[in-house]
Amino acid sequence: MDALKRLIAAFKALPGVGYKTAERYAYHVINSSSEEAEEFSNAILLAKSQIKRCAQCGGYSEKAECDICSTRSGETICVVAEPKDIAVMEKVKSYNGVYHVLGGTISPLENRGPDDLRIKELLKRIEDYGTKEVIMATNPDVEGDATAMYIARLLKPLGVTVTRIAQGISMGTDLEYADEITLTKAIEARRPL
Amino acid sequence: MDALKRLIAAFKALPGVGYKTAERYAYHVINSSSEEAEEFSNAILLAKSQIKRCAQCGGYSEKAECDICSTRSGETICVVAEPKDIAVMEKVKSYNGVYHVLGGTISPLENRGPDDLRIKELLKRIEDYGTKEVIMATNPDVEGDATAMYIARLLKPLGVTVTRIAQGISMGTDLEYADEITLTKAIEARRPL
Repeated sequence: MDALKRLIAAFKALPGVGYKTAERYAYHVINSSSEEAEEFSNAILLAKSQIKRCAQCGGYSEKAECDICSTRSGETICVVAEPKDIAVMEKVKSYNGVYHVLGGTISPLENRGPDDLRIKELLKRIEDYGTKEVIMATNPDVEGDATAMYIARLLKPLGVTVTRIAQGISMGTDLEYADEITLTKAIEARRPL
Repeated sequence: MDALKRLIAAFKALPGVGYKTAERYAYHVINSSSEEAEEFSNAILLAKSQIKRCAQCGGYSEKAECDICSTRSGETICVVAEPKDIAVMEKVKSYNGVYHVLGGTISPLENRGPDDLRIKELLKRIEDYGTKEVIMATNPDVEGDATAMYIARLLKPLGVTVTRIAQGISMGTDLEYADEITLTKAIEARRPL
């Protein structure tokens, strides 16, 4: 059955989906109502055609400039690696600045240097907005740290405060299960009570 | 972003998919090429419109009668609960009879009795084909067993041999981890070496 095989192949292309799971999804679609299948099919086309990148921050948006960039002050810019990281950071209701998507991190292994990231765009926005603080919110791993360091060094001469999101023990983690690097960072970044 | 929310909702309807996974799938689709997104969208519509039920066995088929029913002898019928079970059984290359999909199992809890299953159709096929053996391949659980027993009692007066797929310890399972019911069945069904 070619139609079934095609659908399974389409599901198998999703991240983390193997053959068995793809098959399960495909059977679900076949067993669903025609309306549900049509809505699914349309939602894919619609999302693909409607969702673009914001001209300012590079995040996902249905408009040329996203709701965040068009309504908030550029005094603080939170720099993230990927568009989806914006949604994660937005769960922190207390942050009310704008974002900037780099489009990845500096990674010699994947042949990605500073020129492949949206750094020039960041410099221009800092100048345009008169930004006072840039928060580096790349992932707390080697590449994320290196990228944060690189950008911090680039921005300091401009008189911008560059900060890094804190690294330490996650809430609810038993000390016993924390790895050495995290513990080292947690001790280094200890604060007076 | 409504388009994104709609796509996430569509993915969330899939079995076993929570919000985070649906979000991940949605981002993957948005980041994929237009051709990939179109292929995905088309595969859903195509599968939904092309894949019907075989008039004989009730399994999935793109034709009125599936390839299995139209080419194989009806001397042996393997009875399964759901259409997808046929694909599972077909991995056993040694079986070369036809199948019959009941469309579920007898389940008082879900208000499903014998009349809700394709039992009349099974009786008609047995008569038409002159079937000699019916293999009950419903799941090895209470409902699957009860359904197998019910159909066996119904068919015996017709002079048809009714068999049940064997229950016992799965290959590779440590005895230590086998449950009591499985062990009991394995001892009951012991065979001389």
